[in-house]
Amino acid sequence: MTTVLLDVDTGIDDALAILTAALSNEIDLVGCTVTWGNVDVEQGARNTSEVLHLAGHGDVPVAIGAAGPRDGRPAVFSPEVHGADGLGGCADTAHVPALSPESAVELMLRLSHEHAGSLEIVAVGPLTNLAAALDADPTLPERIRQVTIMGGAALAPGNVSETAEANIWHDPDAAQVVFDAPWELTMVGLDVTMTSLITDEHRARLAAGGEIGRFCDRILDFYLRYYEGYTGERASGNHDALALAVATGLVRTTLSPIVDVRVDCSDGPARGRTVTELEGEWGQWPEPEGARHRVVMEVEPGFEERMVDLLAGA
Amino acid sequence: MTTVLLDVDTGIDDALAILTAALSNEIDLVGCTVTWGNVDVEQGARNTSEVLHLAGHGDVPVAIGAAGPRDGRPAVFSPEVHGADGLGGCADTAHVPALSPESAVELMLRLSHEHAGSLEIVAVGPLTNLAAALDADPTLPERIRQVTIMGGAALAPGNVSETAEANIWHDPDAAQVVFDAPWELTMVGLDVTMTSLITDEHRARLAAGGEIGRFCDRILDFYLRYYEGYTGERASGNHDALALAVATGLVRTTLSPIVDVRVDCSDGPARGRTVTELEGEWGQWPEPEGARHRVVMEVEPGFEERMVDLLAGA
Repeated sequence: MTTVLLDVDTGIDDALAILTAALSNEIDLVGCTVTWGNVDVEQGARNTSEVLHLAGHGDVPVAIGAAGPRDGRPAVFSPEVHGADGLGGCADTAHVPALSPESAVELMLRLSHEHAGSLEIVAVGPLTNLAAALDADPTLPERIRQVTIMGGAALAPGNVSETAEANIWHDPDAAQVVFDAPWELTMVGLDVTMTSLITDEHRARLAAGGEIGRFCDRILDFYLRYYEGYTGERASGNHDALALAVATGLVRTTLSPIVDVRVDCSDGPARGRTVTELEGEWGQWPEPEGARHRVVMEVEPGFEERMVDLLAGA
Repeated sequence: MTTVLLDVDTGIDDALAILTAALSNEIDLVGCTVTWGNVDVEQGARNTSEVLHLAGHGDVPVAIGAAGPRDGRPAVFSPEVHGADGLGGCADTAHVPALSPESAVELMLRLSHEHAGSLEIVAVGPLTNLAAALDADPTLPERIRQVTIMGGAALAPGNVSETAEANIWHDPDAAQVVFDAPWELTMVGLDVTMTSLITDEHRARLAAGGEIGRFCDRILDFYLRYYEGYTGERASGNHDALALAVATGLVRTTLSPIVDVRVDCSDGPARGRTVTELEGEWGQWPEPEGARHRVVMEVEPGFEERMVDLLAGA
């Protein structure tokens, strides 16, 4: 059983991660902090609350965090990927969100004390909230078991630019702060999330399930349509849930060298790139002395099947 | 028959390219311009002259070019890869180089007029000379059939930094000028050159050949030793000769989309990266409208065998 705080910008794939965290017997989901990213932070919080209620976990606190990047640049969202409402047009406009009176930083810090030493932070949006929490309390890492992020691309190309993955590109400065902090950090980036695919076959099995499965089927239609225009195939990366799965042992990694990651915070063409010392591509996978960042390059197949079983069977 | 000007920083793999160009019946090698890079430009010119004499082509003019990067930063060489003399310790110190009284830019411009419309420039070092020639005469591209460079990495990681290939990293500003110029440009980067390998088996066949083959065997020993430390295997990329082969049809490309390449000239961690719009990695290989740069991603296997036959049989 892993105690998990999810930092989300909910989002279609965030919804799958939240549902998986809420429904899995292996995971104790103790809070959701919300950041801007796929949608604005208020819509992200609405969606998070809606999805938790759908899973019967309306008691999990949902706290609103950053509305835009750390450096004050304008926030840019991804309606073409997730829909204007973040749930592919399926958000329940009648849902009255239950939100925590605490801010995202306050909730994160409180939970870090309540679950000191055992809390796993799984951050699947821009890392603005985590950087703000480190600003507020630099001792935070001492109480965190591990941080696992969905973000970046070590050898894979980007998805919002040639080189950059969306979550990192949205807030490179925050990402650099999070990589620099003295905690164990695992990066689950496009190298693996774009090989962990959700297809119409999965959707059919979800559609034949209960209310949660049918919800997933509906929101995934929009997501797969976006990916079809992007890759030519109706198959989407299972980004956020895969990061959760890596963090909690729902999937095993088969190649995840510990290397150093630097974030390109320049205004050059590689802005937002996670630059990694991964010379192993040309042969061995050396782990440079003093390196601290685990970069997941391969996982065992099969997690998507188990996730769909979980969501369809709920 | 392709009319070729080679721009070189001779280097072990440059030597193989020069010998292949000199010996192939498909290639008319009309000049070599020399740049700094693997070694300083004077040593590179000595090596170029020595190798041409070895091939019985001492009549090919060899012209000295740039001694360091376009922006005036200090020149950095690669003795660990090519040896202090650029030929793995095998340079003939008794060789008296025959050098052109023209500069590299002068020779390049003269040949562009003498072979207007048919001249193929194959540039396998930092692109400082080509950028200087464009400065001297912006009409140069009108007279060039095509420029083919060994350099860059589209999806592959770098070899001098996490992201950057050596030739581009040595002089990103010059590379950007060359990519911007209005000529057809083909990039043969690490994506293919690190899959076109020279091994000890090739060396054994070269050693059993004539004087040229034995010379190649000797210089490659140093090169393979370097690669062994780098990748764990005694196998080196056949970088420069592969660019020559692509340019002259000695090898066919099987995947070479036309995309846009931008060079990272920032001082960020991706300095020297060739940033390419290659979203095809995630599915289709779209060729963006107006794109001009052919990026070679796959070639037919077999060129190394033919090259070794040529060099061993000479």
